[in-house]
Amino acid sequence: MRAMNAEILTIGDELCRGEIVNTNASTLAQRLWDLDITTRWMTSCCDDADDITSALRQAVERADVVICSGGLGPTEDDLTVDVVAALAGVAPVVDETARARMESFFTRMPGASVNPGLAAIQLRQVRVPTGARVLGNPAGLAPCFEQSIYRSLQGSPIPVFCLPGFPREIAGIWESTLRARLAELREAAGSVERIARQIYRAFGRGESQISQLCRGIVDDVPGATIHYQVKFPETLVKLVVRDRDQATADARLASMDTQVRERLAGVLYGTGADNLVAVVTKQLIATKRTVATAESCTGGLIGELLTSLPGSSAAFAGGAITYSNQEKIRQLGVAKATLVTHGAVSEATVREMASGARERFGTDLAVAVSGIAGPDGGTPDKPVGTVWLAIATHTAVKTKQLAWPGTRDQIRQLAAWWALSLILEEVKS
Amino acid sequence: MRAMNAEILTIGDELCRGEIVNTNASTLAQRLWDLDITTRWMTSCCDDADDITSALRQAVERADVVICSGGLGPTEDDLTVDVVAALAGVAPVVDETARARMESFFTRMPGASVNPGLAAIQLRQVRVPTGARVLGNPAGLAPCFEQSIYRSLQGSPIPVFCLPGFPREIAGIWESTLRARLAELREAAGSVERIARQIYRAFGRGESQISQLCRGIVDDVPGATIHYQVKFPETLVKLVVRDRDQATADARLASMDTQVRERLAGVLYGTGADNLVAVVTKQLIATKRTVATAESCTGGLIGELLTSLPGSSAAFAGGAITYSNQEKIRQLGVAKATLVTHGAVSEATVREMASGARERFGTDLAVAVSGIAGPDGGTPDKPVGTVWLAIATHTAVKTKQLAWPGTRDQIRQLAAWWALSLILEEVKS
Repeated sequence: MRAMNAEILTIGDELCRGEIVNTNASTLAQRLWDLDITTRWMTSCCDDADDITSALRQAVERADVVICSGGLGPTEDDLTVDVVAALAGVAPVVDETARARMESFFTRMPGASVNPGLAAIQLRQVRVPTGARVLGNPAGLAPCFEQSIYRSLQGSPIPVFCLPGFPREIAGIWESTLRARLAELREAAGSVERIARQIYRAFGRGESQISQLCRGIVDDVPGATIHYQVKFPETLVKLVVRDRDQATADARLASMDTQVRERLAGVLYGTGADNLVAVVTKQLIATKRTVATAESCTGGLIGELLTSLPGSSAAFAGGAITYSNQEKIRQLGVAKATLVTHGAVSEATVREMASGARERFGTDLAVAVSGIAGPDGGTPDKPVGTVWLAIATHTAVKTKQLAWPGTRDQIRQLAAWWALSLILEEVKS
Repeated sequence: MRAMNAEILTIGDELCRGEIVNTNASTLAQRLWDLDITTRWMTSCCDDADDITSALRQAVERADVVICSGGLGPTEDDLTVDVVAALAGVAPVVDETARARMESFFTRMPGASVNPGLAAIQLRQVRVPTGARVLGNPAGLAPCFEQSIYRSLQGSPIPVFCLPGFPREIAGIWESTLRARLAELREAAGSVERIARQIYRAFGRGESQISQLCRGIVDDVPGATIHYQVKFPETLVKLVVRDRDQATADARLASMDTQVRERLAGVLYGTGADNLVAVVTKQLIATKRTVATAESCTGGLIGELLTSLPGSSAAFAGGAITYSNQEKIRQLGVAKATLVTHGAVSEATVREMASGARERFGTDLAVAVSGIAGPDGGTPDKPVGTVWLAIATHTAVKTKQLAWPGTRDQIRQLAAWWALSLILEEVKS
C-alpha cells in the first residue's frame, strides 16, 4: 500500500495578479483527498508557454498524477493544449466529438449564423493532443483530456489531466468521468486503502465551539481522523476512517455516529451533500407545506435561496420585500404604531410581518426578517448585526434575535440561514 | 527596465487537503501587482520539511523575491523557521523583541499563569534565523522576517520574506513594514517600470465575442497588453500599459479609450471597480429615482442585488416575489385572462407585472421578470432559458426576451443582471 501523490497546476494571469481566488485548487484537492490521493503540491503560473512548460515538467518529475486547470479557452492566451502536446511530442488536433457538440450548441444560439468569423477561433478550444484520452465536458465546450508525459529520469509516463478553468465545468467533468478514471489509476498503482466517510453539517455556532464539542471522538478508533471546514455560515465536520477492508472502515465510522449526533445536538441539521437550503426545500415539499417570506434587511435573499432548487414552486408561494416602512404597512399590514413605538428592527415588527404575510399569502408558514446589516445605521441600543426573525404558523408566532457583528454580507447570509433554520424546526416536527 | 518577479509560497496541510481556500496567495499577489512586482509563481506545499526545503530552493532559483506564508506557529508542524535557517546556514534564535511582546501578551491573558508548560512551545513562534532582518507583526505574536538565501547557480542572494498564515496578521505586517521594504527592493533592483491600467466592464455578450470586438486594439501601442476575465455574467476587459515613465504609460492608455468604447458600444456599462450592481445602485441614488421589483423565476435575487450595498434604501422601496400565478394576480394585479391566454412566461404577463408593481409601490421605475429557469418546465415553444423582462416608467413599458440555455443558476443570474441593465438604461438617460 503506497500513497498516490498529486500535483495541481492552475494556469492563468488573473490568478497570478490576484484577481481571482483559486477555488479550483482547493475543490480539486478536496476531491482528490476523498479519493485517497494526496495533493503534495499546488502550483499556479501565468499564461506563458515557457512557464507552463517548466511547471508541467517539474510536476511530472515529482508527482504520480497531475491535474491541470485553465488555459483551454478559445483565445490566444489559452496555451495548455499546445504546451502539453509539445511536451508529449505530438501535434494538437481537433476532437471531432467536441467539435460536433460545439456546432450543435452554436446552432441553437439565436443569431449565431450572422457571425461566421467566430468559427476559426472557437475551434481552438476543441483541440486536444493527438492520441490523448478524451474525457469530454458535459457542462462546457472545451473537452477534458488525459495525456501521458514522460519523466526525464525514470522514464515512466505520468498521466496529466487537463481541465478548463470554470468551476461548474470542472464539477461536471469530475462527476461524469474524471473521478472514476482517477480511482482506476489509484487502484492500478496498488493503493488499495478503502475509505469510509461522513459529513455532518452544523449551523448555529462557530468552528472553534464545534471542534470543542467533538474533541476526542476519533481518539480510540483505528484509522479515524476528523476535519473541520468552515463554509460560512455553516461548519462541516468530516469523519474519515481508512482501512484495507471497506466493511471494517464502514463499521468503525458507523460506531461513532451516535456520539457525534449527541455532541452536536442543537447545531446538527443534516449529513451528506445537502446543505440547509436543500434540506429545508426538500422537507417542505415532502411534508406538503407552503411558505411565504417577508424580508427587510435580507432584501430577497431568503426567497432566492428557497427558489434555488428545481421543484420549489410546490412549497414557495412568494414573498414581500418590504425595505421601507411604508411597504411593511402596505404589503404586510404592520401597524404604523408598532413601527413608531418599537422601530422597524424589533420583535413586535417582525411578529406582525410574519403573521401579516401568512394571512395574505395563505400559506402554512411565513418567515420574517428585519435587521441592521450595516455598515451604517447602528445605534448603541441596536448595533450593526442586530436582527429580529419571526416565524408564523397556524397556531403561533415564534421569534429570535441575532447579535453578531459581521460584515453586511455576512449578517444578511446569517439572517437568511437562521430563517431557513426556523422553517426547518417547524417542518421536521 | 526589467520586471521584478516574485514567487508566493503558502505552506500548510489544510491547504493541500483543500480544507481552506488560499485567499492569502491572491491577496498577496494583488498587493505585489500594485507595487509593480509580478507574481510569476504561486506554490503550496504541506507541512513537511523536505517539501518546504525543495519549494524554497526552487523559488530562489527562479524568482527575484520570495514571499512565504504559514508554518510560523508554535506547534511541531510549524517548520518554516527551521527550514529557512538551514537553507541560510544559520541557527534559529529567539527574537528578544518578539519574546518581550509575547510575554506581555500572556501576562494580560486571564489564567495565563496556570499553564507554565506553554512557555517552551510558545517560544518556538518567536524564533527567527540568526541575523535575519526582523519586520515584526503588529497583529500577532510570530514576527515576520526577511532572510536572504543564495541561488545555487548565479550565487546571488534572494530575499525571502516569511509571514504567518493569518490574513489579519499578513495585512498588519504589509501595512506596517513589508510594503515599504518591498518598494525599496524594487527600486534598488532598477525596476522602475510604471503601470497604467483600466478595467472596462461589459455585459450582454460572451467572452469570445467581446475579445473578437477588441481584436488588434493594443497592437500598435508600445508596452500595451489586453486581458479578459469572465465573471459570469459579465466580462472584464483589462488594458495595461507599462513604461518607465508614468505619464507616457497614462497617455498611451488614454489614447485607446475612445476606440475601446466604440468597439464595445452596447455592451460596455462601466469602468473600474464598480460592477453592474454598484453602478445601478449609485446611479439610482444619484438621480434620486426609486425602483420596485416584481420577480418570478429569480425568486428575490434582483431585490437581493439591489440591497447588497449600503445606502440602497434611498432607491429601493421593496418588491413582490410572485412565484405562483395566484400571487401575480393578488400582489401585482395581473389579469387572470392574461395568464390563461399568454401564460406566466410571456410578454403580456411581464408588462402587467411591471406596471402593476410601479403603481402599487409608487416608484419611478419597476422591473419584472418571469421565465423558465429549468431544468424542468421547458416546452418546445418556451424552452428552458426563455425569460421575459419588462421595465415600467412613468411613460411606457419596455420588454425584452432572453433565450439562453444555461443552468438554473446561470439563467437566474443572467435574468437578474438584464433587469439591472434595463434599469440602468432608464436612469442614465
